[in-house]
Amino acid sequence: MLQDVTLAYETWGELNETADNAVLIVHALTGDSHAAGGASAAHRRGGWWEPMIGPGGAIDTDKQFVVCSNVLGGCSGSTGPASLDPATEEHYGMRFPLVTIRDMVRAQKRLLDDLGVRRLALVIGGSIGGQQALEWAVEFPDFVEKAVPIAATGALGPQGLGMSEIGRRAIMADPDWQHGDYYGTGRSPENGLAIARMAGMMTYQSAAGQWERFGRRRASRPALFEEHGGRFEIESYLQYQGKDLVGRFDANSYLYLLRAMDLYDVAAGYESDEEAYSKMTAEVLFVGVTSDWLFPAAEVRQSAERARSTGAKASYAEIDTLSGHDAFLKDWAELREAIGPFLQGENKS
Amino acid sequence: MLQDVTLAYETWGELNETADNAVLIVHALTGDSHAAGGASAAHRRGGWWEPMIGPGGAIDTDKQFVVCSNVLGGCSGSTGPASLDPATEEHYGMRFPLVTIRDMVRAQKRLLDDLGVRRLALVIGGSIGGQQALEWAVEFPDFVEKAVPIAATGALGPQGLGMSEIGRRAIMADPDWQHGDYYGTGRSPENGLAIARMAGMMTYQSAAGQWERFGRRRASRPALFEEHGGRFEIESYLQYQGKDLVGRFDANSYLYLLRAMDLYDVAAGYESDEEAYSKMTAEVLFVGVTSDWLFPAAEVRQSAERARSTGAKASYAEIDTLSGHDAFLKDWAELREAIGPFLQGENKS
Repeated sequence: MLQDVTLAYETWGELNETADNAVLIVHALTGDSHAAGGASAAHRRGGWWEPMIGPGGAIDTDKQFVVCSNVLGGCSGSTGPASLDPATEEHYGMRFPLVTIRDMVRAQKRLLDDLGVRRLALVIGGSIGGQQALEWAVEFPDFVEKAVPIAATGALGPQGLGMSEIGRRAIMADPDWQHGDYYGTGRSPENGLAIARMAGMMTYQSAAGQWERFGRRRASRPALFEEHGGRFEIESYLQYQGKDLVGRFDANSYLYLLRAMDLYDVAAGYESDEEAYSKMTAEVLFVGVTSDWLFPAAEVRQSAERARSTGAKASYAEIDTLSGHDAFLKDWAELREAIGPFLQGENKS
Repeated sequence: MLQDVTLAYETWGELNETADNAVLIVHALTGDSHAAGGASAAHRRGGWWEPMIGPGGAIDTDKQFVVCSNVLGGCSGSTGPASLDPATEEHYGMRFPLVTIRDMVRAQKRLLDDLGVRRLALVIGGSIGGQQALEWAVEFPDFVEKAVPIAATGALGPQGLGMSEIGRRAIMADPDWQHGDYYGTGRSPENGLAIARMAGMMTYQSAAGQWERFGRRRASRPALFEEHGGRFEIESYLQYQGKDLVGRFDANSYLYLLRAMDLYDVAAGYESDEEAYSKMTAEVLFVGVTSDWLFPAAEVRQSAERARSTGAKASYAEIDTLSGHDAFLKDWAELREAIGPFLQGENKS
């Protein structure tokens, strides 16, 4: 049992008098609380959902009180494996307890309670953030008016589990991982984390999108590694992405968050998916991405259909793109088109 | 320039008087010359194409002289990076020259010349073996009567290149790799090779096939690694596959063969794919696998169409299965159905 949990968070807009205009934005695997708010030294490219949030935006900060918190188990200000265990004053490392999607959502609930929020007008997020948005609707039905899980289902499939396992094994096989006790040693599992990120990136894109973006074109920037690799754009790109994550993310956090995504099953604690979905009273919009490989659109649609079959107010929308899983972090116009009508249906103000 | 190249090979059946009833079987990435011939200590499960080869079989050893050689750069008897460099009497390691698909085919041609073969009635193989079958038809048109590249195209796409890069990086990041000079050190990059194999296995299967075979079922055998992993069947399966390859394959060979697959481009040395295909005089049957992720069926079909557009005698057949890329190593009935009519068209005897 964790004591003294910290959640790092940011807010935009004002909570209204009835305390029911709050929107919770839930970040993806390696995201953080900076969903909006412009560029800074720590966020060179600005907020990760900047184009979606602002005055008059799809998430309208003139009307809504928008909250985004770094997830429990993360490494961007919230309590996670890199934090000090107050009992021992040492970093938790792998002694950090396994954290589930439900734990993450419960921690967010405490935060919203502290902020005086009475009801969520909306909870929205993609990928592992979408799993949390879904779990919110199941776990706290009375608290949620609308939920939008994007590029997420009630449970990750075996191809996603397999890709997670490759990343996990790469981190754990790195001798610099030191069973998770690398803090303060001057070494950390940089190679392992980079490889895990490369495996992740593959699942975030589609084959057709990669043909369009990279094809078999030769790399234009010099190879980070000389031997054998570094000839093709796709290799250079993956190496860059791996290296980039190493500079900004904790490898143990990566393991914990990945595992939460693997293990999430909306049916956990219920007889079936359907029984879980039947608890939902919120309006829930499941959003699939046509070229998503990690959470295929057909599975997202099926989740929506199963939910609806239980009488839940579930609907489905689709983003038609070659961008793959990551579409919710880049295809802004298509994303707005997919969720806009649902959001505008009954905005609290 | 390599000196004194050895190719390990096996043969079945007899070469006829006109020396034109030969069939060359080309193995996949981690295969070897033991395409048939039953089980032994080194081949517990028998030949890797056993059900296809034999008296009266699809490849009929009563009528044909069947040859299978371990590929140049391999580690099952043929010269490769684990071999001793006669100039230095040390293992080549990463000083072994980059080997191309064309080099592999040229080495096979020398072997067939030595065996007295005048003409190949058929060259057939899947995956990197399919690339070689295709290259045979382009490089030695007068020597080849029929060619069957299975689950292969004229060039691997970016998703395949990306997965290769993950495996390559995992091997090279393993400190036991020692820049390839691990021979005789008592250590070898077992973790790196296992991870590379896991990444490979993901590309050999399909999402639908993995749902059917593994789903999210819990592992029934104990985890090889305790931490985090080992809960799901797919994890246990990947770990087993990784460990299994480590016991039978050389990591440097893996790097060289993977790179040959990455770099192969049928258009290399020509103006275009089409110019290369126009050199083919053999009857060529391209075989796609509907659920193939590494060489998608649509791309295999497109290769066949491009070849045909140049006037080449190219046709296309498809294996309809959930097995994914590896279908040519397991879906025997479907494979026979796809290639049978083509093979029976004009068998030399």
